[in-house]
Amino acid sequence: MTRDLTIAEVRLTPILVADPPLLNTQGVHQPYTPRLIVEIVTADGTTGLGETYGDTKYLELARPLAERLTGRSVMDVNGLFAIDLGVDESRVQGEVDAGGLRGVQSADKLRLSVLSAFEVACLDAQGKALGLPVHALLGGRLRDAVEYSAYLFYKWAGHPEGVAGEKDDWGAALDPAGVVEQARKFKERHGFTSFKLKGGVFPPDEEIAAVRALAETFPGHPLRLDPNGAWSVETSLKVARELGDVLEYLEDPTLGTPAMAEVSAGTGIPLATNMCVTTFGEIKEAFTRDAVQVVLSDHHYWGGLRNTQRLAAICAAFGVGVSMHSNTHLGISLAAMTQVAATVPGLHHACDSHYPWQSEDVLTERLTFRGGKVEVSDAPGLGVELDRDELARLHRRWAEDDGSLRDRDDAAAMRVAEPGWRQPVMPRW
Amino acid sequence: MTRDLTIAEVRLTPILVADPPLLNTQGVHQPYTPRLIVEIVTADGTTGLGETYGDTKYLELARPLAERLTGRSVMDVNGLFAIDLGVDESRVQGEVDAGGLRGVQSADKLRLSVLSAFEVACLDAQGKALGLPVHALLGGRLRDAVEYSAYLFYKWAGHPEGVAGEKDDWGAALDPAGVVEQARKFKERHGFTSFKLKGGVFPPDEEIAAVRALAETFPGHPLRLDPNGAWSVETSLKVARELGDVLEYLEDPTLGTPAMAEVSAGTGIPLATNMCVTTFGEIKEAFTRDAVQVVLSDHHYWGGLRNTQRLAAICAAFGVGVSMHSNTHLGISLAAMTQVAATVPGLHHACDSHYPWQSEDVLTERLTFRGGKVEVSDAPGLGVELDRDELARLHRRWAEDDGSLRDRDDAAAMRVAEPGWRQPVMPRW
Repeated sequence: MTRDLTIAEVRLTPILVADPPLLNTQGVHQPYTPRLIVEIVTADGTTGLGETYGDTKYLELARPLAERLTGRSVMDVNGLFAIDLGVDESRVQGEVDAGGLRGVQSADKLRLSVLSAFEVACLDAQGKALGLPVHALLGGRLRDAVEYSAYLFYKWAGHPEGVAGEKDDWGAALDPAGVVEQARKFKERHGFTSFKLKGGVFPPDEEIAAVRALAETFPGHPLRLDPNGAWSVETSLKVARELGDVLEYLEDPTLGTPAMAEVSAGTGIPLATNMCVTTFGEIKEAFTRDAVQVVLSDHHYWGGLRNTQRLAAICAAFGVGVSMHSNTHLGISLAAMTQVAATVPGLHHACDSHYPWQSEDVLTERLTFRGGKVEVSDAPGLGVELDRDELARLHRRWAEDDGSLRDRDDAAAMRVAEPGWRQPVMPRW
Repeated sequence: MTRDLTIAEVRLTPILVADPPLLNTQGVHQPYTPRLIVEIVTADGTTGLGETYGDTKYLELARPLAERLTGRSVMDVNGLFAIDLGVDESRVQGEVDAGGLRGVQSADKLRLSVLSAFEVACLDAQGKALGLPVHALLGGRLRDAVEYSAYLFYKWAGHPEGVAGEKDDWGAALDPAGVVEQARKFKERHGFTSFKLKGGVFPPDEEIAAVRALAETFPGHPLRLDPNGAWSVETSLKVARELGDVLEYLEDPTLGTPAMAEVSAGTGIPLATNMCVTTFGEIKEAFTRDAVQVVLSDHHYWGGLRNTQRLAAICAAFGVGVSMHSNTHLGISLAAMTQVAATVPGLHHACDSHYPWQSEDVLTERLTFRGGKVEVSDAPGLGVELDRDELARLHRRWAEDDGSLRDRDDAAAMRVAEPGWRQPVMPRW
């Protein structure tokens, strides 16, 4: 074969993508959120795509890494993870990331979050070069579509006055009726049949009422509630008692493995997490203590698609369920999530995705949800194509930003509307 | 691409391969041991090779499976493991396999032991068709050679009189001097620098003396002792005390996770196993109880190379070491072991292999150990080629056997020399 899979060039493009004013316990989404688009080009001209967080600290690690990849083979993804990115432990120590929404920050997690985009880009390039879908490189798909859940958020109708940002047509959702209306739109537009409400925004009773309203409007539909660790053990147990009959699982009701284990011991509702188990190093304690029953993998911070498969295998061996978490992301990552999810046996819960909230993307063709599912592409690689004009436009937005939006800060975004807002002390309730 | 990766034909060839009179706690190796060679041929004529146990119960499951594979893609290895082989649970219940040397028999393990050969054959075919080594399909190699340990056995000079069998030039090894002499030959012929003694054959004091003699002759060389669960907890702890200063690890001193956990709690020597953790279902209890510190994977019964990677990931997450176990096997399996071992991070112990004991093989070119290591092939697939004449010769031996050797039975082989021999009741000491 004349194929040359040597990496000839790596292109990094930081962008800012429009994000609606979605509320969470830390604050509100900024009008634009940073993402990094990675392109790995092989000597024979194949381009692989990857996507990850675009905040400064990720860019700082991605840039020197990109330079070191030239001359390596795109096949060598195991070797990729052996590269020392030189993450400064002391800088990361005790730091939180997006207000802690992604769990504890650690050098390892930061490293993996950067590497994941390069791994996905390598797999995309491999697939394109070999004429195989990424799922085939991961052992082959076990299903032809992957189910996602509607990701409901309390939200404002628009970003605060005087703040730049794109308009959205979802309207406000600040009470049970608003949440139900949003769910209805999600179902109508994308066919979702399970719903997750991002909680931790209002006092628990209001959120309990919202979930109750969803249960009444959509009987039999799996429901989840995720306050991002905003509750005490006591509050978590109270919510579990009150919603025990309608919740598929309760997600990160409280912070940290010991507290989660306490909640777990006191309720029959499964606990899911993307905050107390976010790295391989956190698994042992959590599983040994039966602190969580479902791990929500995020291929960005677990370190790519093969690591997601590894995580799924660990969960399976311990009888822990697995599904997928999502932060704001674009179509490259949705394609990657779908490809790997298709290969995971025992994926019993619909995956999360912010994608329906993203009005912008860098693909020539958006991915679509039908019946709440994304079809698993059998096209080579991830099966998506970059829209260079759109990439350039979103990069210009990043380049022209004064720096205030280049690092996601939901608390800062909240202060625009509520000047006295501070990062809340947990547990809030 | 015009490549067609559809499976057009699957050929199964049971064979009998020469095996020296190696002793273990159950008896002695038969003069010939059954193996099954699997060839998967794609529509474009690529042939992938696999190898597994050849006993009747494996053949019975492999035959209908082979017929069901036609028309599937060799890329679809995840789907392979979703095939229901219809293993009869009741038949397997309580059954032992090779006298229990491979741990508890279970329907799942039997199923995986069959599937593993097909998975390896699929990966070999994939690699050949795509022009890539198997390790590249597994994410790429992390090292250019894989280290193996010398697998020392107590043995007779030859099989009992009147028994067919091939001669070997290793001589007898029935005492410390014999074991040291054998180790010397291993080092001379293959360059091994670590030694494992298969124990459980003689009373513990004799085996302690043999290990002591090895330690004196080869100072600084990692040493292991594996009595296949022949000892009580008390005896295990006594051996651990007496050999604590020279053993790298103690392998399966006693049977079952509870007893292993007891030994583990009472000694600082790491415990390794290929008997109490042999399936994914056995991991949780063993790891939660800290019963073992090293799992010796065997890709045959763990279900292939991707499952071996999964097992390694589980071990890594729990801080448990990983290395590789071996039963009598040929070069296809050694190549497969080497390819996957090359991709496993943190492989801190030399792998086991019976290969030096096998004077026969079905390859055109034998694999070689240099400095105790096997070089990781970068040739397409496993990098080995089938010797059809030799395959046919070893198959004739199987076809002409009256059935007495088609199912490995070390106790039966022992009864030829010691008519009163029965499968020992454990613990023996």
